[in-house]
Amino acid sequence: MGDKGRILLAATGWDTDFWLAEFAAKAPAREVVLAPDGDVDPSIDYAVVWKQPPGLLSRLPNLKAIFSLGAGVDHVFNDPTVPDVPIVRVVSPDLTTRMSEYVVWQVLDHHRRGPCYRAQQAAHVWSEDKNQCAAADITVGMMGLGELGRDAAAKLRAIGYSLSGWSRTARSIDGISCHSGAEGLADFLASADIFVVLLPLTGDTTGILDATLFCQMSKRGPLGAPVLINAGRGGLQNEADILAALDDGTLSAATLDVFCKEPLDRDSPFWSHPKVTVTPHCAGASIPSSLIGPMIAQMDAHDRGADLANLVDRSAGY
Amino acid sequence: MGDKGRILLAATGWDTDFWLAEFAAKAPAREVVLAPDGDVDPSIDYAVVWKQPPGLLSRLPNLKAIFSLGAGVDHVFNDPTVPDVPIVRVVSPDLTTRMSEYVVWQVLDHHRRGPCYRAQQAAHVWSEDKNQCAAADITVGMMGLGELGRDAAAKLRAIGYSLSGWSRTARSIDGISCHSGAEGLADFLASADIFVVLLPLTGDTTGILDATLFCQMSKRGPLGAPVLINAGRGGLQNEADILAALDDGTLSAATLDVFCKEPLDRDSPFWSHPKVTVTPHCAGASIPSSLIGPMIAQMDAHDRGADLANLVDRSAGY
Repeated sequence: MGDKGRILLAATGWDTDFWLAEFAAKAPAREVVLAPDGDVDPSIDYAVVWKQPPGLLSRLPNLKAIFSLGAGVDHVFNDPTVPDVPIVRVVSPDLTTRMSEYVVWQVLDHHRRGPCYRAQQAAHVWSEDKNQCAAADITVGMMGLGELGRDAAAKLRAIGYSLSGWSRTARSIDGISCHSGAEGLADFLASADIFVVLLPLTGDTTGILDATLFCQMSKRGPLGAPVLINAGRGGLQNEADILAALDDGTLSAATLDVFCKEPLDRDSPFWSHPKVTVTPHCAGASIPSSLIGPMIAQMDAHDRGADLANLVDRSAGY
Repeated sequence: MGDKGRILLAATGWDTDFWLAEFAAKAPAREVVLAPDGDVDPSIDYAVVWKQPPGLLSRLPNLKAIFSLGAGVDHVFNDPTVPDVPIVRVVSPDLTTRMSEYVVWQVLDHHRRGPCYRAQQAAHVWSEDKNQCAAADITVGMMGLGELGRDAAAKLRAIGYSLSGWSRTARSIDGISCHSGAEGLADFLASADIFVVLLPLTGDTTGILDATLFCQMSKRGPLGAPVLINAGRGGLQNEADILAALDDGTLSAATLDVFCKEPLDRDSPFWSHPKVTVTPHCAGASIPSSLIGPMIAQMDAHDRGADLANLVDRSAGY
């Protein structure tokens, strides 16, 4: 194998045997290695990474581009020596669809009182909530209006929810009341009942989910107090503030798929908190086979002179 | 009040004070009573009913129509003396929307492994299912393709699911593989992974959810064995057969919103069965205020000579 440039696969915590087999099947002309040959390896054209070891990519002088194995790329920038080459983010219809499934599922679970009915089942209690509001009575606030946020918003609209959204840069999206930037944040927070977080993790967004933010969320909605659903990144969270806000009623409930430290510690208070749903970073889980084809196609096109798509804006950090 | 014909409200188990107040607010020209005056009451034009006491309606010689407070009308026919006047079923966008919310919620909860992740949370276990299938890999089989079934199917399609459907009479619906009648049932049962039941309760459908049916459901799907979601009527269920099918693996899981006897007995085995989600007949819960306006509008139009809409076919029983 190997009449095209070599690929370095640096995917910490992933089953690399599986990935090597997938690459061998789908890109037999490219050799894939798990480590550079020697201190400096000029034979590597592309790197495919998830939380690459710091310093690894700086040993590849002919690197043409870095492909992130996640929609978020904060894991790439944890390495301060990451070379100044184009970084391609995953934009996969499969990943987008799965993330939207998760978001709709969890919004419905809070709106339709899943935790309440499960507690009643455990106690053998039959009691219908006669004041159940309809989807149209609830506004879901999307924090982040990238590929993932926009797709989830469209599917929530199809179910009947009202939508508002917030993003770094101004957007105009049919059916979503859009807010942007620091100046639009307060109005956004006052506009919704369930907040779905799909923000990238950058210097600007680290720890953004904190007491200051929660206090500005509307408490006038049909759910009493706002619900927080974070399917973005754990680093967005001030976890002590989330627990305090749940305990004092500033938040009515939370679904957290991501945490500052993963796996979540066995003694974390989130596991047994009665207002928290914990899932193990499974919201946007994608199958590798759906990612590799588009990645190889981009490498081949780039070798023929085409521009790379889905590039990261390094100044914005995502 | 009362320059139009009187209405009899016979809504067993409902908060009639609330309804009387709603009628008084929205139809001040019609007097609403909870019982006929005397053995025979010629002053009643319309009856609004939920499980009316048997024999009550036969005492109203001038009754023009019966309005059911539910989408299903089996509760009306439990009374063998129900007079031969038009019966109007509720077709309410609000009720339809709520039912679809419930169906999408429960389909997602099974597909996205809600019970599994909740058990893991209770045990403080962080373990992602790496073989999670996508919505497109799953076929949801709708049993019943009336207003409710069609709306739920359209919303499931928007999330990404494949759809098949079964109905008494042949239908052709975009995006749904449709089957009909007794001759189409086996093919339908072999076609899907999650079965959503929104059938009317009639002589033909009573007890249809039984061992014979479950044995014909596909076991080749991504969930291992089929999932049953019944948001229709409890009388559709052979409950002993459901429990047996769950225990021997013919069914992998079930969500039941309705039961042969409601409220469900405190000692029913469904409450604590590890494969069962019980909800208290809340799937299509509707707010009275959304039902009364269209009902009054139909009565007024009918008094002016217009035809009634959403009429029940008495020969079909729904």
